[in-house]
Amino acid sequence: MAEAVRHEEIEARVNRLQALMSKEGVHAFLVTQHVDLYYMTGSMQAGYAFIPATGAAVFYVRRSLERALQESAVRVQPLTSLRQFRAQLESDHPAVFSGRADGVRIAAELDVLPAATYAKLAEVLAGSANDCALVDGSSLIRRVRMVKSPWEVARIEDAARVVAEALEVSVGIIREGLTELELMARIEYEIRLRGHIGMMRTRSYNMEITTGMLGSGAAAAVPSAFDGPAGGLGLGPAFPQSTSRKAIGREEPILIDIGCCIDGYIIDQTRTAVIGSLPDDLAEAYAQSEAIIRQAEASMRPGTAPESIYADALKQAADAGLADHFMGFGTNQVKFLGHGIGLEVDEWPVLARGFGNPLEPGIVLAVEPKFTFPGRGVVGIENSYLITDAGCRQLTRSPEGLILLP
Amino acid sequence: MAEAVRHEEIEARVNRLQALMSKEGVHAFLVTQHVDLYYMTGSMQAGYAFIPATGAAVFYVRRSLERALQESAVRVQPLTSLRQFRAQLESDHPAVFSGRADGVRIAAELDVLPAATYAKLAEVLAGSANDCALVDGSSLIRRVRMVKSPWEVARIEDAARVVAEALEVSVGIIREGLTELELMARIEYEIRLRGHIGMMRTRSYNMEITTGMLGSGAAAAVPSAFDGPAGGLGLGPAFPQSTSRKAIGREEPILIDIGCCIDGYIIDQTRTAVIGSLPDDLAEAYAQSEAIIRQAEASMRPGTAPESIYADALKQAADAGLADHFMGFGTNQVKFLGHGIGLEVDEWPVLARGFGNPLEPGIVLAVEPKFTFPGRGVVGIENSYLITDAGCRQLTRSPEGLILLP
Repeated sequence: MAEAVRHEEIEARVNRLQALMSKEGVHAFLVTQHVDLYYMTGSMQAGYAFIPATGAAVFYVRRSLERALQESAVRVQPLTSLRQFRAQLESDHPAVFSGRADGVRIAAELDVLPAATYAKLAEVLAGSANDCALVDGSSLIRRVRMVKSPWEVARIEDAARVVAEALEVSVGIIREGLTELELMARIEYEIRLRGHIGMMRTRSYNMEITTGMLGSGAAAAVPSAFDGPAGGLGLGPAFPQSTSRKAIGREEPILIDIGCCIDGYIIDQTRTAVIGSLPDDLAEAYAQSEAIIRQAEASMRPGTAPESIYADALKQAADAGLADHFMGFGTNQVKFLGHGIGLEVDEWPVLARGFGNPLEPGIVLAVEPKFTFPGRGVVGIENSYLITDAGCRQLTRSPEGLILLP
Repeated sequence: MAEAVRHEEIEARVNRLQALMSKEGVHAFLVTQHVDLYYMTGSMQAGYAFIPATGAAVFYVRRSLERALQESAVRVQPLTSLRQFRAQLESDHPAVFSGRADGVRIAAELDVLPAATYAKLAEVLAGSANDCALVDGSSLIRRVRMVKSPWEVARIEDAARVVAEALEVSVGIIREGLTELELMARIEYEIRLRGHIGMMRTRSYNMEITTGMLGSGAAAAVPSAFDGPAGGLGLGPAFPQSTSRKAIGREEPILIDIGCCIDGYIIDQTRTAVIGSLPDDLAEAYAQSEAIIRQAEASMRPGTAPESIYADALKQAADAGLADHFMGFGTNQVKFLGHGIGLEVDEWPVLARGFGNPLEPGIVLAVEPKFTFPGRGVVGIENSYLITDAGCRQLTRSPEGLILLP
């Protein structure tokens, strides 16, 4: 069994959320999403966690109550009836509901909560008093989750070890004619044996990721709906991204952008391999991706704005004459250099315009400079880093450099 | 490359949705979810499909435009700016917006669309005229998707073949001491090699499924948040369902409830295996699960109400003295016998109370009678069936009966 989240850990998370809630004039948070529930209680059972701006949180559980009682670091109560939920909350948290002339403001994660469920919950919470607004608290919870504890970083490092081992074992099978799908299947088998939960959780609507993006040559360079620097041909119109059935050839880049999820925490890493050698211009572009990640490493520290790291990378790519190829090609370019990772693969902050709040210790970032050459392939590198007090520390463990295969 | 959806197929789907829209007084449907987009256009690129109650649908695509143009059976337009979207729609679909004294009713899938995105889209669609309501159309699209075409059934049959092959290859590795995770990893490897997209799509909020539920003995009988008859111990509090690291032992049931997704379509199948033999009472319960599925087969035909099939199964389980063990144990029982499958694993109808609309040809159902014995295990069977003009036809292909291993 995986190590359970410690009570002090959960208490610190709840306290940080409560501090943000008080600042934003939110009287309580109704946590609805399973990943947020796990983060805030230590348990992923079905129900709602109610966190008042001051006072103790309660996890109202539909099922399984037994498991929630074992797992949760906050008090567990059965959620017997949604119709009685408002009365139950008023009774358990009188300070939230009483004496508010301007009404009660309860936050939830409106970035993920379906509109129909939102409408139902808003009605339930308003009750007959009709004094309660259900407002968007997704930015609050994303800001809290953005900063990882040492306990969380240790989980991410476990995932980093698993991906490095899986990559090391799997590159050995690469030969001309092996299909992308055969290689991906092998990597997925290796990470699964080592405890990968079998999926990579994402937060964005319609965003899917299996274990990453593995593609070779022209197939890797095909654009897709996926909001990442490499799309990939995919398995057909019903899964039009990432790995395809294309056979891997000689002297074309093999992009191996893979992650895994161990004990709930995700790692993200990219390496580029080739059978034989890369054409000079692609080899040069790969070298540029390493140069850009070196520059990012030098600027990642508390106080740096994420958007400035992205701007620097754009300039570096342009200076190298690779502006059109950076992070996708032409109109299919994506507008970021990296992203937060943790329980989900698309966490905050993003290394992109609009992310001006300075980095702080505990943030974990996947940085993924890549260059796309339509009809030829994608080259690049991706490491994940922890922002420390003084700078950053790399969490991904696979050796860098092009992986040259005979 | 997978076979593309034919144009006539898409046209028929759009026509069926339009018929329902007209009946329900909906003037247009804004399709937002990637799976629904694939169903309604043949393409899963990012954007929105706008389907007027009469007239031609248009797929407004953000990215990748190139791929949407190749894949989509409905007309593709670039979606340049959300701010200009209302004007673009008015210009392309004047009949939807003009001369409506009571306002324009546009439907979307509010069962999956996040509340924050809903609010933004409602504002965009209302425009300055503020004459437009964004209403819930999820039941319309779920009703259309519920009835499969022969083309879709052929895809589901492809998935059924893959699962049967993977199971046949994988049971050969089962021996005392093999962990559930090792067995699951092998099955997943086999289905992936054969084209599984790497995930099983679900529609319900917070509902996750890897490739199913594989569990042995006591671990399989642990309840979970998952809305299925067997929960499973899982890999820890961050993935508290399905497969665990427990070693498989002798004379305990091994529940192998697995699916896969080929060209977007899902199959769902369960078999029960054992090393040695099962204790008499568990063997008897397994036999009851086959008896219940035989009874369901006899009643599955156009005209039968799904809820009556569930009621019959409850009675049959009670008559066998197994009421407390049926579809989970005690307070952790789930309240259904089966569910629709297709592009998602949790489709309509459900064989459960409240589903009174009679079955019709083209519905595909996974029927999964199971019995849970806390501390001992779960036994059962699951087949998937197509409702035909005369009755039903089984789509799953693995031989029935307990899988007895030496």
